Amino acid sequence: MRDALFHIRRADNVSLQSQIRETLVTAILGGQLPPQEAVPSTRQMAKRLGVSRNTVVLAYQALVDDGFLLSRERSGFYVNDEVLQGIAARPERVSTPSKQPIDWIKRFVVRPSIQDNIEKPQHWQRYRYPFIYGQIDLALFPIAEWRDCTRRALGTKSLGDWAGDSYTADDPMLVEQIRTRILPRRGILADEDQILITLGAQNALYLLAGLLVTPRTRIAIEEPGYPDLRNVLELRSDRIVPIGVDEDGLPVDGRLSDCDLVFVTPSHQFPTTATMPLERRVALLDQAARHDFLIIEDDYEFETNYVSESCPALKSLDQGDRVIYVGSLSKSLFPGLRLGFLVAPAELIREARAQRRLMLRHPPNNNQRTAALFLALGHHDSLIHRLHRAYKARWSAMGEALEHYLPRSSRAPTFGGTSFWVRGPAWLDDQRLAKQALQEEVIIEPGRIAFAAPEPPRNYFRLGFSSIALERIEPGIRLLSEAIDRQAP
Amino acid sequence: MRDALFHIRRADNVSLQSQIRETLVTAILGGQLPPQEAVPSTRQMAKRLGVSRNTVVLAYQALVDDGFLLSRERSGFYVNDEVLQGIAARPERVSTPSKQPIDWIKRFVVRPSIQDNIEKPQHWQRYRYPFIYGQIDLALFPIAEWRDCTRRALGTKSLGDWAGDSYTADDPMLVEQIRTRILPRRGILADEDQILITLGAQNALYLLAGLLVTPRTRIAIEEPGYPDLRNVLELRSDRIVPIGVDEDGLPVDGRLSDCDLVFVTPSHQFPTTATMPLERRVALLDQAARHDFLIIEDDYEFETNYVSESCPALKSLDQGDRVIYVGSLSKSLFPGLRLGFLVAPAELIREARAQRRLMLRHPPNNNQRTAALFLALGHHDSLIHRLHRAYKARWSAMGEALEHYLPRSSRAPTFGGTSFWVRGPAWLDDQRLAKQALQEEVIIEPGRIAFAAPEPPRNYFRLGFSSIALERIEPGIRLLSEAIDRQAP
Repeated sequence: MRDALFHIRRADNVSLQSQIRETLVTAILGGQLPPQEAVPSTRQMAKRLGVSRNTVVLAYQALVDDGFLLSRERSGFYVNDEVLQGIAARPERVSTPSKQPIDWIKRFVVRPSIQDNIEKPQHWQRYRYPFIYGQIDLALFPIAEWRDCTRRALGTKSLGDWAGDSYTADDPMLVEQIRTRILPRRGILADEDQILITLGAQNALYLLAGLLVTPRTRIAIEEPGYPDLRNVLELRSDRIVPIGVDEDGLPVDGRLSDCDLVFVTPSHQFPTTATMPLERRVALLDQAARHDFLIIEDDYEFETNYVSESCPALKSLDQGDRVIYVGSLSKSLFPGLRLGFLVAPAELIREARAQRRLMLRHPPNNNQRTAALFLALGHHDSLIHRLHRAYKARWSAMGEALEHYLPRSSRAPTFGGTSFWVRGPAWLDDQRLAKQALQEEVIIEPGRIAFAAPEPPRNYFRLGFSSIALERIEPGIRLLSEAIDRQAP
Repeated sequence: MRDALFHIRRADNVSLQSQIRETLVTAILGGQLPPQEAVPSTRQMAKRLGVSRNTVVLAYQALVDDGFLLSRERSGFYVNDEVLQGIAARPERVSTPSKQPIDWIKRFVVRPSIQDNIEKPQHWQRYRYPFIYGQIDLALFPIAEWRDCTRRALGTKSLGDWAGDSYTADDPMLVEQIRTRILPRRGILADEDQILITLGAQNALYLLAGLLVTPRTRIAIEEPGYPDLRNVLELRSDRIVPIGVDEDGLPVDGRLSDCDLVFVTPSHQFPTTATMPLERRVALLDQAARHDFLIIEDDYEFETNYVSESCPALKSLDQGDRVIYVGSLSKSLFPGLRLGFLVAPAELIREARAQRRLMLRHPPNNNQRTAALFLALGHHDSLIHRLHRAYKARWSAMGEALEHYLPRSSRAPTFGGTSFWVRGPAWLDDQRLAKQALQEEVIIEPGRIAFAAPEPPRNYFRLGFSSIALERIEPGIRLLSEAIDRQAP
């Protein structure tokens, strides 16, 4: 009967010794191996699992060293009951309180769970045509170099720098890399006290909302725009002014003049990919000074400009300290890593840092240090170089396929980026299309989620190309256009 | 002149090849090596740095592979100017806006930077007697095992699981480990949808405050208590009721009856270390049901009970779903890793998860997976086992030294834990003492920060023992008692 406790998976990429360890540890801590009985001998276990006895001996010995097993001369191995100490039994209740149901809805100050948001199919990697946005192509990522930096960050010397709680501080090495390597590429000069590391760009936007937005704050956002920002702001203020973007991005006109805050994605607008020209940028800064508002520049995907001349950040033009800059490393490293940063006047960074302490202390130190090493050794630069080459080829293929199968439905993003914003025929239903396309293994992102309007247009969708292989683009777009045709009235 | 650009540090633990790479990458990206000039030949570079030519050749070749250098037959290596593309120059401003100073103070909704908080000396590792709280002793940590788990989490198979943005999801492997390994030790049974991974316990408390606290919410907190919690709450509500704790922790009386929320540290009270007895726990739960309030249990350091019988969490007694449980893995792994978790009814977890998405998406996936493997392989259990042995010895030494040098100033924490709470003579000034002790290389934590009262007592301080070596305890307490004597009036 006890045999069923122990099993290993041959095909797995985990060593046999580790698997034996894991299966025994699970049985010991789960209480299936009582301390008074001997565990199966190394010979029995080797036979049962069909592995060499030596492998089992090494695994048992490690468990003795770690205090899970005791070795008794001539009678074998026993569970060390010391390791079971401190496991609290679920106590019996002395009396039962009147069980009153709790009205949770009444208790919540905000209910973020009912907000609409972007949803992606789980296991998107299994689909043939993933025009998914914001994920990466692992085939392009230098995993060996990242592993090497991880190993170094775990070196005894580095470890002392970062293992502890560092309260409000960031890894000075990462701050230095951002200051000297990344920001100059965007035309930005900043001191250490003007930079804060955040848990991704989303965390930077959340921190800013917490510091600058009250229910009475008037805020301009782009329409369409980034839904995760809109959702953050809607929990805090009723005075959100969505301003329809044109082909040059956010229009600068009188509607901004009575705002306190303006959120903008000037380099390539989210999701339309429009780039704001220089004259409009200057007009925006001038209006900010004249009407005393602050600008929050979300420079998302700043590293993906491989098409046109380099286009510096809005922040680089700002001499009045009115632009707060949000950047992200998630897109060019792993999105799952969650690393971003904030560049702003020192007064603001000081408050954001104190706020971050209360919210989460600091982004994990090990990731900060690994990313810093990755940047310092030039791996990030060569990764970007490699991404540019791959994305440019995909960008061309996307442009050609869209022009062929869905003519005049989109403009090629002049900043490069990783997506196309597509306007379908007036009768299109984006969500229905997304569902139908999925049946052909084509993943697209319905566009209506990007609109703040209560009755958003339903004929827009977004096609990302950061995760789809070049040769899948043309057939994917073809399948998509057929799915659209099937919807035609 | 260019010689100064290139330098390596012999004593460093970084390979020579990596150092050559780093120094060249820095010079290339910094623009100190113009693309039209050849870079120093491998022979020259080897001579200049005093390393073998082969090392230099390998470093150069890697830089060619990565697109930093071009190799031209018979004329040497050149900077590949492609790698410099996309570096934006800081543009000239077309016109200068009227430079108006910004009144930042007026703009801030909250000003967390002016709150008092715990401060620790930088580079505390360099002090001989670090009675610092909340840091770890790297000498006890199984670094090789952690490295192994990191390497595995970076295996190609695992990587596919976690490299992407996972929006609202947590690593199912870590959730499973918490559910089956950690929570049963606290007497808690929970389903997957009742668990949320957070960026440390602090992040869990912050999320709860965001969901449950309005300016009108009446909240009981312990006095003295955890300052980082008080600071979070004070930014949101004016109705905070500090309730003085006694030797059994938070008293349960009529003062709780009109509260909406009660924050409590029952297992060992922060910072006094008192453990709440069973009868009081039952009374607290009964009162919660009767007066319809929720309880937030911060079970900090739950894994450090090595003195008394296992003491299950308050949550384990809760049959009315009124207890929200906050746990942390930061203390037993690295504090710098920032991993914690929340256990609560599914209704609450759903909102907390949506709130977390807006705040930071999710704790970094690589750390979730590494911690999950560390738990699954039993390394965490054997670490706790080792910590218990070390802490118990230090706990005894602390108790003896305190009884000898500062008799009747403290009670030994019956839960174990990692600190003693000490009451000095009535005339003591904790902050002055901390400063004076620091000059003798003794780090202590002044106690007044833990009090919400506007005129807090000044004769308390906290002594942590998680980072100080056993043999330093007695001489450290001796030096401390001498510093106290010197303050005597």
